[in-house]
Amino acid sequence: MTYCCALRLKQGLVFVSDTRTNAGVDHIAVFRKLYTYGVEGERFICIQTSGNLATTQAVIGHLENQLTLKNEPNLFSVNTMFELAGLVGHTLKAVIEEVTSDTHEQSNYYCSILVGGQIRGEEMHLYNIYPQGNFISATSDTPYFQIGESKYGKPILDRALSYEMPLDEALQCSLISFDSTLRSNVSVGMPLDVMIYNKDSLQMPRGKRITEDEPYFQHISKQWSETLRRGLQEMPKPTADFFE
Amino acid sequence: MTYCCALRLKQGLVFVSDTRTNAGVDHIAVFRKLYTYGVEGERFICIQTSGNLATTQAVIGHLENQLTLKNEPNLFSVNTMFELAGLVGHTLKAVIEEVTSDTHEQSNYYCSILVGGQIRGEEMHLYNIYPQGNFISATSDTPYFQIGESKYGKPILDRALSYEMPLDEALQCSLISFDSTLRSNVSVGMPLDVMIYNKDSLQMPRGKRITEDEPYFQHISKQWSETLRRGLQEMPKPTADFFE
Repeated sequence: MTYCCALRLKQGLVFVSDTRTNAGVDHIAVFRKLYTYGVEGERFICIQTSGNLATTQAVIGHLENQLTLKNEPNLFSVNTMFELAGLVGHTLKAVIEEVTSDTHEQSNYYCSILVGGQIRGEEMHLYNIYPQGNFISATSDTPYFQIGESKYGKPILDRALSYEMPLDEALQCSLISFDSTLRSNVSVGMPLDVMIYNKDSLQMPRGKRITEDEPYFQHISKQWSETLRRGLQEMPKPTADFFE
Repeated sequence: MTYCCALRLKQGLVFVSDTRTNAGVDHIAVFRKLYTYGVEGERFICIQTSGNLATTQAVIGHLENQLTLKNEPNLFSVNTMFELAGLVGHTLKAVIEEVTSDTHEQSNYYCSILVGGQIRGEEMHLYNIYPQGNFISATSDTPYFQIGESKYGKPILDRALSYEMPLDEALQCSLISFDSTLRSNVSVGMPLDVMIYNKDSLQMPRGKRITEDEPYFQHISKQWSETLRRGLQEMPKPTADFFE
């Protein structure tokens, strides 16, 4: 499986993806699921993928092939993020249709994609693209999307995340969401890829890969466990009527 | 959907179930999913159910009908918790086979069941019973089972719960697991049913129903949100290289 999450906040965009893939429990590998494209000063695009690895790689392959051949539309020719989401959705739908033309089990070949970024002249956008090729857009009410193994890490986002939150706090919150998922589900695994984009910068961030021995992640993982344990200890004890 | 969790700890058993059922988003109702049976001084049995409501009610109906008619084997005639798990599993399998004899979509009619308790002369046991009628048993390494919408509430159990934990702390931990689930998934809903059994007491606890306005649950729900928010604020800020 996979866990990817992306946030579209007032000050910018945050993307975090794990890197574990598994085809059965004895076929586990590390594959990057976070891809960035851009032109300095003009556009920044980040794509995260979850689902069938052959499908996700085919989608990325087609998108990059169009860029290489300078065939339009491509990631650099579309005028808006909305057009970009349409291009990715169209590509995804075509890939799934091609591979499933002779099967009824389409869902085995599904993948979900998050696309976020900014193109000069418009706001930042973040889209969640479905296997059917259609998509939804993040808003200030719902500033985040998750794909893959999303449930373990959702409670902390639901409680703590807000549109106005500074990017460093939002990153903390996302990393704790990942730490919770990593501990509860072995199909999500390190290293993690992180990408943070500052609103209106139109610059390509380098991003960071968090490995098992990354000191900051180790620190917050440990401190968060202590926070939870201490928080539990500080809770008032249940009233006696619970035990009758 | 449903969320039920059950703990088998050194000092006793803890059972918590939600009560929401839904057949589509416009058909939401409150149904009890936690059933207790027992004979003071002789046996205590708690059954929790998740899945198709007609299936779960048929299983409970058959088990109670056997008791009423004094047909053996029944909940009070089995000699051990292992035999009890077998009886429940057998009943569950038979119910599913009857209703799905003319369909290939068996899984629509599935349900999962947790059975815990103690019969005089043996240890406490907790079993997770599958739709196929087979089951697994909780151990001191893995002292808890969840059925239904289990993922949202799993991280806190994985981090904080241990076999040695006193029952009041384990209850706090379970209620926080439920609070996290309730906030992130509308198919799990209040009120909650709680049942706590003290090891070797062989007495029937009355149990407690937690409604929306229950002061203790409101208190820990609010305090837990503050714990998480404060915990996040106390985290060290991410290093600069995350933002490059």
